[in-house]
Amino acid sequence: MKKLTFLFVLFLATLAIDTIAQQNLFGGQDIESAIVNQDNTVTFRFIAPNAKEVSVAGDFVSKVEDNPIGGMVGTGLAPMTKDQDGTWTLTTEPLASELYSYLFLVDGVATTDPNNPFVFRDFATFTNVFVVGNGQADLYKVNDIPHGSISHDWYESKGMGKDRRVNIYTPPGYKKSKEKYPVLYLLHGYGGDEDEWVNFGRTAQIIDNLIAQGKAKPMMVVMPNGHIDMEASPGESSIGFVKPKHSTDYPASDGTFEGNFDEIIDFVENNYRAVPDKAHRAIAGLSMGGFHAIHISAIHKNTFDYVGVFSSGHNVILNDGKGVFANFDASLTKQKENGLQLYWVGIGVDDFLYKQNKEFRALLDKTEMEYTYVETGGGHIWKNWRIYLGDFAPLLFKN
Amino acid sequence: MKKLTFLFVLFLATLAIDTIAQQNLFGGQDIESAIVNQDNTVTFRFIAPNAKEVSVAGDFVSKVEDNPIGGMVGTGLAPMTKDQDGTWTLTTEPLASELYSYLFLVDGVATTDPNNPFVFRDFATFTNVFVVGNGQADLYKVNDIPHGSISHDWYESKGMGKDRRVNIYTPPGYKKSKEKYPVLYLLHGYGGDEDEWVNFGRTAQIIDNLIAQGKAKPMMVVMPNGHIDMEASPGESSIGFVKPKHSTDYPASDGTFEGNFDEIIDFVENNYRAVPDKAHRAIAGLSMGGFHAIHISAIHKNTFDYVGVFSSGHNVILNDGKGVFANFDASLTKQKENGLQLYWVGIGVDDFLYKQNKEFRALLDKTEMEYTYVETGGGHIWKNWRIYLGDFAPLLFKN
Repeated sequence: MKKLTFLFVLFLATLAIDTIAQQNLFGGQDIESAIVNQDNTVTFRFIAPNAKEVSVAGDFVSKVEDNPIGGMVGTGLAPMTKDQDGTWTLTTEPLASELYSYLFLVDGVATTDPNNPFVFRDFATFTNVFVVGNGQADLYKVNDIPHGSISHDWYESKGMGKDRRVNIYTPPGYKKSKEKYPVLYLLHGYGGDEDEWVNFGRTAQIIDNLIAQGKAKPMMVVMPNGHIDMEASPGESSIGFVKPKHSTDYPASDGTFEGNFDEIIDFVENNYRAVPDKAHRAIAGLSMGGFHAIHISAIHKNTFDYVGVFSSGHNVILNDGKGVFANFDASLTKQKENGLQLYWVGIGVDDFLYKQNKEFRALLDKTEMEYTYVETGGGHIWKNWRIYLGDFAPLLFKN
Repeated sequence: MKKLTFLFVLFLATLAIDTIAQQNLFGGQDIESAIVNQDNTVTFRFIAPNAKEVSVAGDFVSKVEDNPIGGMVGTGLAPMTKDQDGTWTLTTEPLASELYSYLFLVDGVATTDPNNPFVFRDFATFTNVFVVGNGQADLYKVNDIPHGSISHDWYESKGMGKDRRVNIYTPPGYKKSKEKYPVLYLLHGYGGDEDEWVNFGRTAQIIDNLIAQGKAKPMMVVMPNGHIDMEASPGESSIGFVKPKHSTDYPASDGTFEGNFDEIIDFVENNYRAVPDKAHRAIAGLSMGGFHAIHISAIHKNTFDYVGVFSSGHNVILNDGKGVFANFDASLTKQKENGLQLYWVGIGVDDFLYKQNKEFRALLDKTEMEYTYVETGGGHIWKNWRIYLGDFAPLLFKN
């Protein structure tokens, strides 16, 4: 047994070299990028001698572009500078602690950073991420505390005519406990799927940390897929490895998701130790998911004591006000009369849905729904939605 | 409510366009790649007018390279041809039904295919995949059958001094049943982590399908992280978003993983409805994981009735034959004497570990351990490991 397997040593060496080489898409040099410096400035590097114009498209850039870049909404552009070797660089101003997203825009074409292996998928879009620590982003870290679990489950939707995937966070200790837990239903945006809150949203890390700090009650978090034509995220459904597409005539909401939401609640309450009453159910979502949260809680008007609307409004999705959406104002009034503990609305001042959100707040005022309103900086970006989750979750299940 | 939000329609349109644009890393054209044609040939396309040499590095190429390419071991190279517009293309021979992996090798640098959004992560390596259906690959599909769940859990390892992540598959019906289930412990290779069998291995899909076809018993599958210096896969551990590195002096196995494996078993049997006896425990692994399965089952010599060794041997990892590895031959003899139902060994004829595997089989012969030996075509590739799992799982828990 003393014999070393030299072929294997060679194999390891080769593997190490090639793994590094793979990162160097445009060069062949081993460079690092998205380096967080001592002073919290961040340096990006990209080898592209033939490119005429390279920018970083990031959610940390203060001036937000009107149009999304590479599927990233609410980001700005920061131009990079080319040195004589053809390496483009940019060092930012010092950044506040956060988990940031970015891409490179190379002569008008968006691409991931080949020198940063941390890439989050959102629908069919890939985005690089980096973290500036010692502050807000510590809420997104895996700390040395008890951890909950994320389970990828399937439930049968008779109303939608298919089995559908749902991601379920259970808090630390769930498996050994006999206790029943309250449930937050947490809904993704139009550009995401059931994995979005797990990846970009850092939901498990945020809730783990809030529970460990005594700031939030131990709770479950249920993250379903909100696209009516999907069973599951790309590659996880029966259509196989088929590139998913957003199209302009996509029927984002025909009411079948909203109307059949009780199926998800039934699945959770029949398969998990969830407290099956209104006082222990919350629903929240971002963008399209905020629209869903508004209408699901109004349609199922005696079901949720807590509602969170992140960067959205009641009319941001194509729906014709028929079916389950009919008489929304009256539904909202009835939802208010049934009583609830919290109606929470948050949006960034640069959000392209700011105007829709304002119209929604006017409607809440008109129906005399009491609500908490939080206005932050920034646009339609993940940074805000993680912050909103971190602010919203501690307010839940207080009674 | 009849009012359409035209800004949002514009947003959807822009999002669709930019999502497509992001895929076009080298061009700006909307092309498709890894197109499976009617006759099961596959066409790859890549726009790179300035490149001098572009090949597809894939596990479907018959002549296997000695060295791994871009972290892919056991693959071969197939040269592409450039047309006058600078688009490189290759159409393969008709391929048998499988889930295949590939990269492009562009002037010596490995890169993912920017026109195929299906990318699997393995450690810090990203590889494209595509599927040729109607045959073996249907075992890897999400079919319209009951689905099990994959849960990302954490267990405390006192022996390794850290909390560690473990992925656990529970079969369809687990949550509602009161039944106890047998458990397959399934271990990843040196180039992977606890997510490897979930992604590349298609473990949930394979076991779901085998159970639905009545070919395998309903079972749990436990997939821990086998790297002694890691808590979890990249981005999921307390070190944060730090690029993981394989280095040549990496102590792949100092015995702490193998010696403390009972902690994982205890976690599973204390937190899940697992049958806590030898007849209902199996252990298998690929490459480094095969080494782990060999030694864990020999160290814990009265624990597993089923052992699976995929493309490995007993001496493929650096260990000095001390500590838990001491007296391996005697441990193997004792393991045999304790009785077990199945010792299963599989390897491809082109595998770079073929010689080590042969030495291992000689040792099994010497200790008179009965074993099933399966020799397949191909090298050190995922295709083989999925096939081995599909062949091995139906043999388990028959008594």
